[in-house]
Amino acid sequence: MEFSRPRGTRDFLPEETSKRRWVENIIRDTFERYGYKEVQTPTFEHLELITAKSGDEIRAHLYHFKDKSNRDIALRPEFTAPVMRLYVNELQSRPKPLKLYYFGNCFRYERPQSGRFREFWQAGVELIGSGYPEAEAEVIALTVETLKKLGLQEFETHIGHIGVLRKVLKKSGVEENDQNLVLGLIDKGEIEELKNVLDELRLKEKDKQLIFNLLNLVGRNEVILKAETLLRGNIDALKELERLREVLRWLKEFGVSDYHVNFGIARGLDYYTGVVFEIYSKKLKAQKQICGGGSYSLAEVFGGEKVATCGFAFGFDRVVLALEAEGVDLGAKAKKEFLVVMTGESLLPKAIEIASMIRNRFPCHVDLMRRRLGKALAYANSIGIPFVVIVGEEELKEDKVILRDMKTGSQKEVSIKNIEKDILKVIE
Amino acid sequence: MEFSRPRGTRDFLPEETSKRRWVENIIRDTFERYGYKEVQTPTFEHLELITAKSGDEIRAHLYHFKDKSNRDIALRPEFTAPVMRLYVNELQSRPKPLKLYYFGNCFRYERPQSGRFREFWQAGVELIGSGYPEAEAEVIALTVETLKKLGLQEFETHIGHIGVLRKVLKKSGVEENDQNLVLGLIDKGEIEELKNVLDELRLKEKDKQLIFNLLNLVGRNEVILKAETLLRGNIDALKELERLREVLRWLKEFGVSDYHVNFGIARGLDYYTGVVFEIYSKKLKAQKQICGGGSYSLAEVFGGEKVATCGFAFGFDRVVLALEAEGVDLGAKAKKEFLVVMTGESLLPKAIEIASMIRNRFPCHVDLMRRRLGKALAYANSIGIPFVVIVGEEELKEDKVILRDMKTGSQKEVSIKNIEKDILKVIE
Repeated sequence: MEFSRPRGTRDFLPEETSKRRWVENIIRDTFERYGYKEVQTPTFEHLELITAKSGDEIRAHLYHFKDKSNRDIALRPEFTAPVMRLYVNELQSRPKPLKLYYFGNCFRYERPQSGRFREFWQAGVELIGSGYPEAEAEVIALTVETLKKLGLQEFETHIGHIGVLRKVLKKSGVEENDQNLVLGLIDKGEIEELKNVLDELRLKEKDKQLIFNLLNLVGRNEVILKAETLLRGNIDALKELERLREVLRWLKEFGVSDYHVNFGIARGLDYYTGVVFEIYSKKLKAQKQICGGGSYSLAEVFGGEKVATCGFAFGFDRVVLALEAEGVDLGAKAKKEFLVVMTGESLLPKAIEIASMIRNRFPCHVDLMRRRLGKALAYANSIGIPFVVIVGEEELKEDKVILRDMKTGSQKEVSIKNIEKDILKVIE
Repeated sequence: MEFSRPRGTRDFLPEETSKRRWVENIIRDTFERYGYKEVQTPTFEHLELITAKSGDEIRAHLYHFKDKSNRDIALRPEFTAPVMRLYVNELQSRPKPLKLYYFGNCFRYERPQSGRFREFWQAGVELIGSGYPEAEAEVIALTVETLKKLGLQEFETHIGHIGVLRKVLKKSGVEENDQNLVLGLIDKGEIEELKNVLDELRLKEKDKQLIFNLLNLVGRNEVILKAETLLRGNIDALKELERLREVLRWLKEFGVSDYHVNFGIARGLDYYTGVVFEIYSKKLKAQKQICGGGSYSLAEVFGGEKVATCGFAFGFDRVVLALEAEGVDLGAKAKKEFLVVMTGESLLPKAIEIASMIRNRFPCHVDLMRRRLGKALAYANSIGIPFVVIVGEEELKEDKVILRDMKTGSQKEVSIKNIEKDILKVIE
C-alpha cells in the first residue's frame, strides 16, 4: 500500500532543503547581527491562548483537537502569541529592550494554493520594551536589510500607522468593535463590503470621503503632507501622523528611504497599536505579501504588564518563492564533495582510512557497494560528486592515490600523508 | 489571564536555545561530512502510515485527531516512517546508496519525566540501498564519531543482531508474531513477563536456558565465540552471528573498537532485520538511551520495492542532557557582541551609523532607550555584552569613538573609518 502525505503539506527533497537552509541561515545571521536571540516554543499551545489573541474566528483555520486528557490543543498558527506568552511567563523581569527572534513552522487549515500551505514557516522578531520611534524604525530596517542580504530586489515596503484611521473612525462616531470590523475589511481589500458597512454605521458623506481619500494616498513622503491637509482639525489623528513621520525620519538614519506610505495597512488584528508595515514581492501573484509587522500591545492580554512591543514575521516559504522568482541562486556555491573508490575490494579498508582523513575538511563518501571502478565513477557522476579519489595498488606502493576531477576528467597523484593539503592545492 | 504551555512541552529561553543549536549544528556537520543530505517531511502524517509501521498499539501514545475534512491525522512520533514514505514516493529511482538525514521534532503522549517530553527532537540518518556489512559499520561509526565530536565521553555502544534470537526462537517453534512479542519484552527489559510468555509458548527448558544464556552474554568480542558455542547446531542462527562478526570486523576499519556485543538489543519494532545497536549515556539515569538504530526492511510496507536499509536516530534532547551531565561547555566560545551608546541623544544618528558598520562583522546593538551613559553601561553589563562603543562629541571631532571593554573597564579610542579593523586589533 502506498501512502501519500496529507493535503496542503510538503516533502522537501535534499536539493530544496539545502536551498531553504541557506535562506534560513542568512535570515538568522542578520537577526543575530542586530542582537536578537532565538527562543523556541512548543508546536502546539492551549487553544485559549490562540483565541485570546486572534479571536474565535481563527478556529475555522486552526488544527485544533482534544488531547488524551481532554485539553483543547491547537497547532500554532503564528508565533507572536506563543512568544509573548513565553515573555510573560519567563522573561518579564529581564532588562529592556529584550530582542527575541524565532524560526519555525506554523499550521493553518486553509485551501491550499500557490504560496499558501497548511504547514508553513515563519521567521520573525519581537522587540520588547522600547516605545521610541527609533526602535520601530530599526525593526523595519531589519526587514529590509534581511531581504537585501538574501539578494531580493523586487519588493515594495508599505508603511502606515493604524492609529490614523482609528482616530478618523473614532471622530466619525465609530466604536472600537466596529473599528476592528472596518480595519479588517480594509486589510482584506474588500472595498465594496467596506462601503456597505460604512453606510450601515451611518457615517456622514464627508467622513466616508475622508476615509477613501486616505486609503488612496499611497506614495512617498509627500503623502504625509497631503494627509496632514486631509486630517486638519482632527488633533488625535494628526498626533498619530506625527509619530509616523518621526519613525520615517529615523528610518532614513537606518539607511532606508525606499518605501511607500500607505494608510490602508491595517494588519487585520485588533492588538496593533501604532506603526504597521507590510512588504510585497513584485514577482509573486496572489500571495505576494512576504512580511508583515508593526507595534502592538499583547502582554497584558496574557496576564503580563503592558509593554511597548514591535515585531514582524517573514512568510519564509514566500520569501523562498520570491527569491526563486527573481532567479536568485540559493546557496549555489559549488560543493566540494568527494567519493573514495578503489580498484579492488581488498583496498576498501585503505579507502575507509583515506575517506576519514578527507572528512576532516570536506564531505566525503566511500564506496559502500563494492563497485568496479567504472561503475563507481558513473555513480559519482550521477549524483553530482565533483571529485573522486581512486585507491589503487600501484599508487599505494608510493603512499599515493589518484585525485580525479569529474568535470574535466583530469587526474593527478596526491600523497596520502599530506592528503588534505595536496587536495586543496589541486582543487583550488 | 495568564496562560501556561501544554503539559510535557518546553519553552526554550535564549541561553538554552543557543546551546541546543550548537549541538544541532555539530550533528548536522558530521552527518554532512559523511555525505548525508537533509530531507524534511510534514509534522503530521496520515494515521495509517504511522500504524502501518508501528502497529495499532502506538495509538495510545500518539497525538492523533480528525482534521476538518475528517482525515485521520497524527503528529509524527518518529522519522523513519515519514522518511521512508518520502523515499518510496519520490526517491526510489535515484542511484544507490542514498544517504538521507533529518533533524526535527516528534510527539508522543506519554507521562512526562526526566528526559522524556511530549514534544522532543530527533536527529538521524537512513542509508538506503547497500546491503553490505561495511555499510552497517559506517552507520554505527557515524553515531560514535558524532558523539565524540560533541565532546561526549561517558557512553556505551551496544551492538547485536536481531536475527540471532529470532532464529533461536524459530528453531524452538515460536511463530513470527510470538517472536515479536518476545523481542518486545526483551527490548523493554521485562524479564519476569518474558519467563511467563516463554512458559506459555511451551518452550523446552534447554531452549529457554539458551535464550537467557544469550541475553546474559554482554561483553567484548569474546562474546561472539561464546555465542558460537551456544548456538552450535543452529545453522541459521550461526549465519546471522557470522554477519554480526563481519560488521564488527569492518567497524574496526572505521576506527571503532569500544563497544559491547549484546544479543538482547531488540529495538522493539517488528521491521528490524539485522544488525541493531543502542547507545547509552552512563551519566543519565532512567532515560539513558541516547541513540538507537539498525538494519530494517520498511519500503515494501509502504508500497515500494524491498531495499536494504540501515539507520539510526539520536534522541536529541537526551544527547543535550548527557552532554550537560558530563559538564561539556555547549558553545561556550565567548561571543563578541557590541552595544553602541552615546553621550547625548543628538548623537543617536551617528551611533546608528557606527552600529551598522560594526554589524558587518559582529552582532551589535544600538541603544534604543535614550539612556544616559551610565545607565547604558549598566544595561550592557546586565545582559552580558562584553564591548561598548561610546559615541561622544569630543572624539567625534577627530572621527573617533571610545571602545570600552566591559570586563576590565579599560577604554581605547578607535577611528571610525577603520572601525572594523581597529576593533579587531583591540579585542583580540
